[in-house]
Amino acid sequence: MYIHETKIKVRYAETDQMGIVHHSNYYIWFELARTEFFEAIALPYDLIERDGIMFPLVESSCIYKESARYAENLIIKAWIEEIKGMKFTFLYQVIREEDKRVLAIGKTIHVPVDKNMKLINLKKKNPRLLETIKAVISAK
Amino acid sequence: MYIHETKIKVRYAETDQMGIVHHSNYYIWFELARTEFFEAIALPYDLIERDGIMFPLVESSCIYKESARYAENLIIKAWIEEIKGMKFTFLYQVIREEDKRVLAIGKTIHVPVDKNMKLINLKKKNPRLLETIKAVISAK
Amino acid sequence: MYIHETKIKVRYAETDQMGIVHHSNYYIWFELARTEFFEAIALPYDLIERDGIMFPLVESSCIYKESARYAENLIIKAWIEEIKGMKFTFLYQVIREEDKRVLAIGKTIHVPVDKNMKLINLKKKNPRLLETIKAVISAK
Amino acid sequence: MYIHETKIKVRYAETDQMGIVHHSNYYIWFELARTEFFEAIALPYDLIERDGIMFPLVESSCIYKESARYAENLIIKAWIEEIKGMKFTFLYQVIREEDKRVLAIGKTIHVPVDKNMKLINLKKKNPRLLETIKAVISAK
Repeated sequence: MYIHETKIKVRYAETDQMGIVHHSNYYIWFELARTEFFEAIALPYDLIERDGIMFPLVESSCIYKESARYAENLIIKAWIEEIKGMKFTFLYQVIREEDKRVLAIGKTIHVPVDKNMKLINLKKKNPRLLETIKAVISAK
Repeated sequence: MYIHETKIKVRYAETDQMGIVHHSNYYIWFELARTEFFEAIALPYDLIERDGIMFPLVESSCIYKESARYAENLIIKAWIEEIKGMKFTFLYQVIREEDKRVLAIGKTIHVPVDKNMKLINLKKKNPRLLETIKAVISAK
Repeated sequence: MYIHETKIKVRYAETDQMGIVHHSNYYIWFELARTEFFEAIALPYDLIERDGIMFPLVESSCIYKESARYAENLIIKAWIEEIKGMKFTFLYQVIREEDKRVLAIGKTIHVPVDKNMKLINLKKKNPRLLETIKAVISAK
Repeated sequence: MYIHETKIKVRYAETDQMGIVHHSNYYIWFELARTEFFEAIALPYDLIERDGIMFPLVESSCIYKESARYAENLIIKAWIEEIKGMKFTFLYQVIREEDKRVLAIGKTIHVPVDKNMKLINLKKKNPRLLETIKAVISAK
């Protein structure tokens, strides 16, 4: 299974007045990691979109264990846990680089749609895309 | 059980290039609804913070059913589903005002902490706050 | 000259670890005020966009006098200061409702473009839109 | 004069439904560049804050020449243009890496304040910090 690692540094604007990263930003980091994941397997996300295929979320969740703070270096691990029917399930870990502690664990579920936000069947519409992704996640 | 309704209008900056609201913004709307919920039960959120008590999230999730779009009027319903041990569980519904369709369903789980982000036992530290909240959620 | 007033309440996510509103959010409030300005003069912003006309910014600026803080009620005043050639200049004031102090003053300059982001000449392409806007700003 | 270069990649969440980067994000990029600038001259921004000194903005502005788009690689150049009295003026350029075109030009003006947001006189309170910064900007 391919696990992609994205490195980020916490931005000042991502903090809130509790002095920690506002929880909504973890979902933006997951998206960054997802984008890089697709690029790493040679499927640039903007190319997929130019093909008319988008992967909106149908579900997202995050468990926060420890707070991330301003200027910390983080590693976002991302991988595809499952492809079942139309649903693509991504899992994520947010790791503080300094001490390797897992600060948060996330999940997002996506379905492929066309420009009109109608569900599309990748098997018919773009089997090559589906096969490429499946090949990546089954590879050790 | 007290259900609070918050009205918002989708901001332009909340859209993304898919032409829909970026999924991370739903969590910001949940927070708005939570703030208003506390105010509605006479517990202004900033007063709680001035007391040294904060309610960071330990978990958040959202199920997206239909996309919200720019300039739409939305109703965010919020209520406390459960208080169990230290955990406060909020549930949310995002409803499009025009046709009353439920666009998304959310959940956030919170724990009370002090200024140093240490867990605090509300029963001992601030029983009045806990009782007020419990009274609200048990009221019909 | 028509001055539109938009009311907002500072969101928690808009604060940063300085304990004040992050400066970038003022530009999002200006946009809110602009959207409501267009609606108030019966030009819903999304209708303009459906016409294929968009008003991207070519310039923005803000002078911060006092900090806005979480949960404060603010009034954003917005008006069109000038239409000169292709350029539309909006001015803004951010006013704290409680004491009527002006916390910030902003300016944004916009030009009309089509779906391909090419400058369009409103006088030729949509004179009615231009006249409506001009009528509003010259009215006392 | 020391010019710092920060590299970023446009995030999906930074786009809006015009299909371009929302204008408010440029200010967040300027902040990133400023943070890295301070680190590059051995003044980590969070250390300055731990000293009780913060540099809130009193003014910000941006001229947008061309739109930045999703997944583009950008270089943010940042330098201190002037220190005059209490005011620190930063200038910025947003450059698209691929063709080296300058997409935007920005400016932010900052003043040093203490934890209570009161102006502080760096010459008295922290002359070493002021001298270090001045030495950097006068160096070729």
